[in-house]
Amino acid sequence: MRRRRWLPSCTMSSASRIPGHRFLHSPGPTRVPDEVVAAMSRQPMDLADPRVALLIAACESGMKRLLRSERAEVFFYAANGHGGWEAVIANLVGPGTQILVPGTGHFSDNWAEQVEAYGGRALRTPYVEGQPIDAAAVEAALRADTQQRIVALFAVHTDTASGTTSDMAALRRAIDAAAHPALFVVDVVASLAAAPFEMDALGVNVVMGASQKGLMLPPGLAFVAADEPAMAVARDTLVPRFYWDWQRRRGAHSYLKFCGTPPLAHMAGLEAALGLIEWEGLAAVHARHARLARAVHAAVGAWAEGDALRLFTEMPAARSVSVTAVAVAPGVDPEALRAVARERFQVAIAGGLGPLVGRVFRIGHLGDMNEAMVLGCLAGVQAALQVQGIPHGRHGVEAAIASLVQEQGL
Amino acid sequence: MRRRRWLPSCTMSSASRIPGHRFLHSPGPTRVPDEVVAAMSRQPMDLADPRVALLIAACESGMKRLLRSERAEVFFYAANGHGGWEAVIANLVGPGTQILVPGTGHFSDNWAEQVEAYGGRALRTPYVEGQPIDAAAVEAALRADTQQRIVALFAVHTDTASGTTSDMAALRRAIDAAAHPALFVVDVVASLAAAPFEMDALGVNVVMGASQKGLMLPPGLAFVAADEPAMAVARDTLVPRFYWDWQRRRGAHSYLKFCGTPPLAHMAGLEAALGLIEWEGLAAVHARHARLARAVHAAVGAWAEGDALRLFTEMPAARSVSVTAVAVAPGVDPEALRAVARERFQVAIAGGLGPLVGRVFRIGHLGDMNEAMVLGCLAGVQAALQVQGIPHGRHGVEAAIASLVQEQGL
Amino acid sequence: MRRRRWLPSCTMSSASRIPGHRFLHSPGPTRVPDEVVAAMSRQPMDLADPRVALLIAACESGMKRLLRSERAEVFFYAANGHGGWEAVIANLVGPGTQILVPGTGHFSDNWAEQVEAYGGRALRTPYVEGQPIDAAAVEAALRADTQQRIVALFAVHTDTASGTTSDMAALRRAIDAAAHPALFVVDVVASLAAAPFEMDALGVNVVMGASQKGLMLPPGLAFVAADEPAMAVARDTLVPRFYWDWQRRRGAHSYLKFCGTPPLAHMAGLEAALGLIEWEGLAAVHARHARLARAVHAAVGAWAEGDALRLFTEMPAARSVSVTAVAVAPGVDPEALRAVARERFQVAIAGGLGPLVGRVFRIGHLGDMNEAMVLGCLAGVQAALQVQGIPHGRHGVEAAIASLVQEQGL
Amino acid sequence: MRRRRWLPSCTMSSASRIPGHRFLHSPGPTRVPDEVVAAMSRQPMDLADPRVALLIAACESGMKRLLRSERAEVFFYAANGHGGWEAVIANLVGPGTQILVPGTGHFSDNWAEQVEAYGGRALRTPYVEGQPIDAAAVEAALRADTQQRIVALFAVHTDTASGTTSDMAALRRAIDAAAHPALFVVDVVASLAAAPFEMDALGVNVVMGASQKGLMLPPGLAFVAADEPAMAVARDTLVPRFYWDWQRRRGAHSYLKFCGTPPLAHMAGLEAALGLIEWEGLAAVHARHARLARAVHAAVGAWAEGDALRLFTEMPAARSVSVTAVAVAPGVDPEALRAVARERFQVAIAGGLGPLVGRVFRIGHLGDMNEAMVLGCLAGVQAALQVQGIPHGRHGVEAAIASLVQEQGL
Repeated sequence: MRRRRWLPSCTMSSASRIPGHRFLHSPGPTRVPDEVVAAMSRQPMDLADPRVALLIAACESGMKRLLRSERAEVFFYAANGHGGWEAVIANLVGPGTQILVPGTGHFSDNWAEQVEAYGGRALRTPYVEGQPIDAAAVEAALRADTQQRIVALFAVHTDTASGTTSDMAALRRAIDAAAHPALFVVDVVASLAAAPFEMDALGVNVVMGASQKGLMLPPGLAFVAADEPAMAVARDTLVPRFYWDWQRRRGAHSYLKFCGTPPLAHMAGLEAALGLIEWEGLAAVHARHARLARAVHAAVGAWAEGDALRLFTEMPAARSVSVTAVAVAPGVDPEALRAVARERFQVAIAGGLGPLVGRVFRIGHLGDMNEAMVLGCLAGVQAALQVQGIPHGRHGVEAAIASLVQEQGL
Repeated sequence: MRRRRWLPSCTMSSASRIPGHRFLHSPGPTRVPDEVVAAMSRQPMDLADPRVALLIAACESGMKRLLRSERAEVFFYAANGHGGWEAVIANLVGPGTQILVPGTGHFSDNWAEQVEAYGGRALRTPYVEGQPIDAAAVEAALRADTQQRIVALFAVHTDTASGTTSDMAALRRAIDAAAHPALFVVDVVASLAAAPFEMDALGVNVVMGASQKGLMLPPGLAFVAADEPAMAVARDTLVPRFYWDWQRRRGAHSYLKFCGTPPLAHMAGLEAALGLIEWEGLAAVHARHARLARAVHAAVGAWAEGDALRLFTEMPAARSVSVTAVAVAPGVDPEALRAVARERFQVAIAGGLGPLVGRVFRIGHLGDMNEAMVLGCLAGVQAALQVQGIPHGRHGVEAAIASLVQEQGL
Repeated sequence: MRRRRWLPSCTMSSASRIPGHRFLHSPGPTRVPDEVVAAMSRQPMDLADPRVALLIAACESGMKRLLRSERAEVFFYAANGHGGWEAVIANLVGPGTQILVPGTGHFSDNWAEQVEAYGGRALRTPYVEGQPIDAAAVEAALRADTQQRIVALFAVHTDTASGTTSDMAALRRAIDAAAHPALFVVDVVASLAAAPFEMDALGVNVVMGASQKGLMLPPGLAFVAADEPAMAVARDTLVPRFYWDWQRRRGAHSYLKFCGTPPLAHMAGLEAALGLIEWEGLAAVHARHARLARAVHAAVGAWAEGDALRLFTEMPAARSVSVTAVAVAPGVDPEALRAVARERFQVAIAGGLGPLVGRVFRIGHLGDMNEAMVLGCLAGVQAALQVQGIPHGRHGVEAAIASLVQEQGL
Repeated sequence: MRRRRWLPSCTMSSASRIPGHRFLHSPGPTRVPDEVVAAMSRQPMDLADPRVALLIAACESGMKRLLRSERAEVFFYAANGHGGWEAVIANLVGPGTQILVPGTGHFSDNWAEQVEAYGGRALRTPYVEGQPIDAAAVEAALRADTQQRIVALFAVHTDTASGTTSDMAALRRAIDAAAHPALFVVDVVASLAAAPFEMDALGVNVVMGASQKGLMLPPGLAFVAADEPAMAVARDTLVPRFYWDWQRRRGAHSYLKFCGTPPLAHMAGLEAALGLIEWEGLAAVHARHARLARAVHAAVGAWAEGDALRLFTEMPAARSVSVTAVAVAPGVDPEALRAVARERFQVAIAGGLGPLVGRVFRIGHLGDMNEAMVLGCLAGVQAALQVQGIPHGRHGVEAAIASLVQEQGL
């Protein structure tokens, strides 16, 4: 009769603990709401259980409502966001396929690089730091493509690295003005369920996204929504693929839809997350994100008086409601600041990516987020600025409070 | 074959949701850490399972370490704090028994009232608002009791209503100076695992407490620790009792120890909570509470510049590390402030109790709490002050940040 | 910057683990459904949060629906079942108060003992092992009380120790036939939400119960429902009490209703559990319990061919749908059987209590229970019988399967 | 001030409920242990948190211990098992690459098909129903490849569809006997942490697996372990790939290791699951699986007396310890049987795949599984057989009990 002591966590070197709630203000992964945690904690079902089919159908229809699309087909992948990108690429990009990738910074660069890894040819429009996509440059590039060899435009709605959101309607107008048949493909990873986006109204052909941001799930689920013209292009794309293949995933059974076993926990969590968004109301979700973003911008604006920090995205209208990038003056070490904020003040913020490493830190404010969380985060960052001796205007948190107080209609 | 839709929460009128983390800054119940939630979520065991006995033994020994007592016996009750009080009363207070209850405000009054409901006679020392227990008055009362008819002194360590902590060592000295044989009984409900307390070193005969404060559990578990002299008094106390009876609970089997079925989920949670405290280290837990309290005091001090708010407890040394009571000027409605703080800024604070209703609000900062949580709470309260138009110095959060930044040794 | 390893469970000596689902077939505590676990895992709220009042109101109204009572007031206690008994006693039993306690075995004995600890006088009707309450003896005792000094009848609906359910309608008829004004007080701890019970229709004045059986919660919550005549008796009962006092708990605020802090986690769990019962339908819940009980009886009947085991409750109609007591022949050690069943076959069953120690084992089949769980339990017990060399008919599980297969209307 | 009712689950059409524990006996997904659920429920961390790196390192080293390999590199993917296959293919299979795929049934066929979708050439050895891989045919095929154009052997250790486990040591000997340089690639999806497997000792170059079987996680995580010769082949494979690419994933930072955001919840769960396996001991885990499999085989053997059912895998040594396929006679509908087992007896079993649809049902007995669970499952299936009128020997469960009782050394 065994009665050995059970010491489950002795090997869990990773689960180091701090007292209390840990403030997670990376722009993804984001906080997972209790309701989603509970849904993901349900035991799996056998795949023939009719409840599995109901779950998947609920996620498909909920995702279409969220994307504001009636005509798209939705494909879910056990994959992260880069897997979602690959799902788009493997279906649309064959050897030599031309893709126009408007510059948004790190993420447009990365997506373009991945296109090239598949043998595609990525045409980049120039990126100016702190600026959103230049729609005029896009229009010019499309007009220049007189032989209409560009198959698709791959646009990042919100570039998480720069905290900049570009105007998708302006891109639509650019494509229309150029009368170019290119597919309009949008990465909404960092914007979905935070900033308004309407797939059908914008004439977007393909949308891709991932679970760990506005959808409030752990990372591990990606999705693509594609309309019929995109499906037609995919059918003609000759590239080795199986897992990513849209056509193969069109079957009725879950095993086909997911090319194997569906990621049941993530799907259960997604159903719960979509329910949370619908309960709050999508407009209210968007308004909340905008309100919290204004508070963060107010704080950074106040900090900027010290001349060591500034909002990276210059145009107010292009500042993301999901994440705010704060540029630091030379000599300021944002990674050291992050460590102090995390380890001494329990606030996890993000750093710079790619060319912005060491030049910015980023504050995420998306997903399951509220006023007090943002204020606590800002106060913790302000404390860390103080510990690190980084010059800053002292009234950052006060400015955020003032911003929230003056919001109407609450 | 049944396949009805499962709508579990449609009847859950209580579980209304706000996005994000809800800041709970009542002085109890307090936040339940994930580790405690997980422990409480374990399925029950049959009561003869040897693991049940191991669980109870672990809680008993852990509680004794926490109380710093080697000689006390620990009794756990499925009950709340008032049940814990009743456990003390039903064992020590018979008809006419005299109990000296030093005034600490609302909670000493309530305990005295409960003593009288059992037919005891509660002798109260005067309470001055904003002040801790007057040890000299206690000594005088004991000296005046020349026939030594006072059976016990019932002292509240931290009065949650006033946010005032009294000096238990001073009480010990008062008892010794009066050479009085009264039992020294201390309520540590609001102080345990927040402020230092040493049962044996203080010569305390009985300690009682509850689960929902520094112990970081949901309400529903109370405990009493009693030493041999107290057990002897209990044996001679003639009052109808069964559930509360210490003597009956002395058996080896769980069914006797708990007078019926033990509250297994709470015990599992307690074991986890005691483990958390020991992992962090009791001294570190105390230091953290003191550090966070100083930050709150700094904020309230800054707010006080508006002349509408002040720290209720005057002597700095008597301010509780668990909860801070903030007195409001006449005309200020603390309940309206609380509603705004809770509903618009997601920060739940407490109000006044008994004679302090409408005269104070209270900020809890105990249990599973950290810097960023306190800063977020203070910022939310400051925002609510602003919404309500309550005059206040604007730099409350900044003062708290400054207080935390200057803390040493982190 | 702290980065110590976090080893939370190293001190959890109690949480020894077995692979897989642990079959809990004690008659309480019972399995806690996932939905209840999730509800209990919600963070506490400040007590002035209007959601707390909604939660309590939902539990009160749900409990009244479950008890089939429109006229009773419901009082919830942070307490176990013995605390619930004490709540009844402390309100109804003063010095010398006469209580008629019909014999059901261990639990009627224990309740009577607790009555006597409060100075009451418990009149017991005889208990015959294996038999339910003798209603004729009750009627005779009431008729014999010509001065009508008996204040109340304290009846245990299902005695968990014997697995016997008595006929409450027969008791009602006995009281009526004797034209006696005694209050009718019923303990439904082990029967509620398993066997039919209708408080108002039965003319029951007081019902008491606890959380850890048919209500599918962890132990730690008790309740009393009392009607106006019972409240009137309580007002006249002179006994020291505060925590248990019904009158004091009549206030509107949660703090009064619970005599201090409400056990929020248990209340949240109760709301969820009541929701589960209503979702399934009370009649369906009763039918399920009856169906599973028949399967267990069939298995024990088959085992009984070995002459070492028999159903303890003789009359089929008196066999509880919650728990089945199995009497063992002299020489059979039920505790050793339990240890083998638990440690080698993962099935936890119960033993004998009081005079039945060493003479019975008990199989619980109530609460969140289904066919496969019962079959797995019976198979595990049968395996343990085999390991222990206890003579038994080999086709116990088959008999249970046959019983379930022939059930109609599924 | 919002106070809308929160009805989270009204949209959860998928979460239909049955009372009690649902018996999941598909061969994957399998039951997720509480400890894994708790680990997966931890909130995400920012990716620069050093605890993330610790978590990943713990999973890498734990996985290598589980695989019994010191020399392999481990790559984790947010993907399901087919994604894991694709990771192998995209790194090793270019246009025209020859892969030898020994026939095991459905899964070898599927893997071969996926190889061909990538432009590879899959050479299949014949599959005989009910038989494991024919090592002699493998040796012959390798010997016939005199130009050594076969790049790799892709072998399925346990074919989940047939419940057959092939002898990997025999394959090793076949490769050695043929003196062929082909890489030895093994799919351990359905065998890992159930049946013994030693990567280094077997000279296996690449192993791939997935999370939802013996690893006791929800689906959504796949892994590949590759040694240096395999990495060298991968470097020379010219196929468009990015997400799957081993070389790109060799970086130190999590973002490189996972080609984007790591699936943190699954990784946290994996660390916990590996801890569970190590706590129990790998040899004990294997022994438990073998013991439970013998019990299932005993039951099916007894059922087979009815001539309508038989064990699909003929050689006892080739019967998987993870899953048992039961062949049904013509006229028996295994899907109808499954529905009855699931909906009336709460036992979910699996059906036939590919050519075995309608010809077998399958009982999974792997992962977080124990004796009572298997017995409950078998009893539920036997009840369903009875309801469906499928001829079967009546003593199936008894045979399983007898098998478990006679096991030694417990």
